[in-house]
Amino acid sequence: MQEAILVMEMDRTNLPATHYSLDIQTDEPLEFVDLTERIAELVMRSGVRDGLVSIQTRHTTTGIVINEHEPLLLADMKRLLERLVPEQDQYQHDNLDIRTVNLTPDERRNGYAHCRALFLRASETVNIADGRLQMGCWQRIFLLELDGPRQRGVSVVILGQ
Amino acid sequence: MQEAILVMEMDRTNLPATHYSLDIQTDEPLEFVDLTERIAELVMRSGVRDGLVSIQTRHTTTGIVINEHEPLLLADMKRLLERLVPEQDQYQHDNLDIRTVNLTPDERRNGYAHCRALFLRASETVNIADGRLQMGCWQRIFLLELDGPRQRGVSVVILGQ
Amino acid sequence: MQEAILVMEMDRTNLPATHYSLDIQTDEPLEFVDLTERIAELVMRSGVRDGLVSIQTRHTTTGIVINEHEPLLLADMKRLLERLVPEQDQYQHDNLDIRTVNLTPDERRNGYAHCRALFLRASETVNIADGRLQMGCWQRIFLLELDGPRQRGVSVVILGQ
Repeated sequence: MQEAILVMEMDRTNLPATHYSLDIQTDEPLEFVDLTERIAELVMRSGVRDGLVSIQTRHTTTGIVINEHEPLLLADMKRLLERLVPEQDQYQHDNLDIRTVNLTPDERRNGYAHCRALFLRASETVNIADGRLQMGCWQRIFLLELDGPRQRGVSVVILGQ
Repeated sequence: MQEAILVMEMDRTNLPATHYSLDIQTDEPLEFVDLTERIAELVMRSGVRDGLVSIQTRHTTTGIVINEHEPLLLADMKRLLERLVPEQDQYQHDNLDIRTVNLTPDERRNGYAHCRALFLRASETVNIADGRLQMGCWQRIFLLELDGPRQRGVSVVILGQ
Repeated sequence: MQEAILVMEMDRTNLPATHYSLDIQTDEPLEFVDLTERIAELVMRSGVRDGLVSIQTRHTTTGIVINEHEPLLLADMKRLLERLVPEQDQYQHDNLDIRTVNLTPDERRNGYAHCRALFLRASETVNIADGRLQMGCWQRIFLLELDGPRQRGVSVVILGQ
């Protein structure tokens, strides 16, 4: 038994996967939350020199977006989402007269947010080389809140050596 | 028993990647096929406690989508795809009078399906911690069929320890 | 010399992550650059038999797209991008009278390109089994240039054994 535990401990020293959880309180219905610094710090803390980090949301009305952090551009992208998938369109997901599945006591009118998420990503993978995220100078990693304000969670796994 | 456990530990140390293939028969032209249970089972079978699973389609007229499995919402998303990328628009990919590349004997009129796939993902990565998929309570993993019914294949790789 | 090569080989056996950088000169404002052969060659060179390759752009006005390489289809997808996110719309990102953030001497009018990237992916993950990319016969990996012509970089990490 003692020896088995020792083997496990040695394995753990070599453990190439590290998992972190980010808790995020969003403030707006539609909001870009910049996670770049937090993720860069986790990569540094993990000690991984070569590998990748997988950033994954735990929610169906958010997305992981990599783009430039320029406030006017973020406003442009919000207008684009509203133009292509308007909040005020009819979504059957919000019709509680006919809906019978996944109903909660505090059900939100958020069909538009789910539909916007269809064209976004639940996860992005960013590469790591020489201990650094392989991102260009304008790239920033965002959680895009589509149905806030809410408490959100993002899962981060760092794999490599 | 003691020795069996030790052997398992050694195997796991040497085998960080496990590959599985899912065969899926779709039934509709446009259909969300929920793969969540099958992928959760593969993760359990792999023995990986910390790492990630990469779910990747082998097709150009499908997408991997993570969203809520609520039937009215799935219908909303189908209507949205039809509104933004209508099936009846003109796509040169379908014009066999001028097309000369990648032609097959049973060529399908599926330009709209390829174009819808442009805004979807060929792969999503879901994180694993403590042997469990790090998904929120409403998140489900779908193969989104855009040009069915057809026989489809999804590749699943599980990496970690 | 012989011994040096041997040491490198041993390192590679123990190194599950390999990083490569692709330099790409794009020629058009909107262009699909097929990276499939280059990535398949890197996977072969890495010696990884089972795992995955993460293909990640370093730019905010490009995307990584997996779709069919049929010229008429690529033209269809370009027209779709122009229809849904027109180049000639007003984007505040391009209004240098009010913008104050991330300004460069050679600032380009590229709000439309950033907005198109919102619906694309910065990364895709392709699985590897038995030393081969697990892609279907029509799948090709593209860098989609949205604001060219420009010099671009794509980061490639191969993980596994």
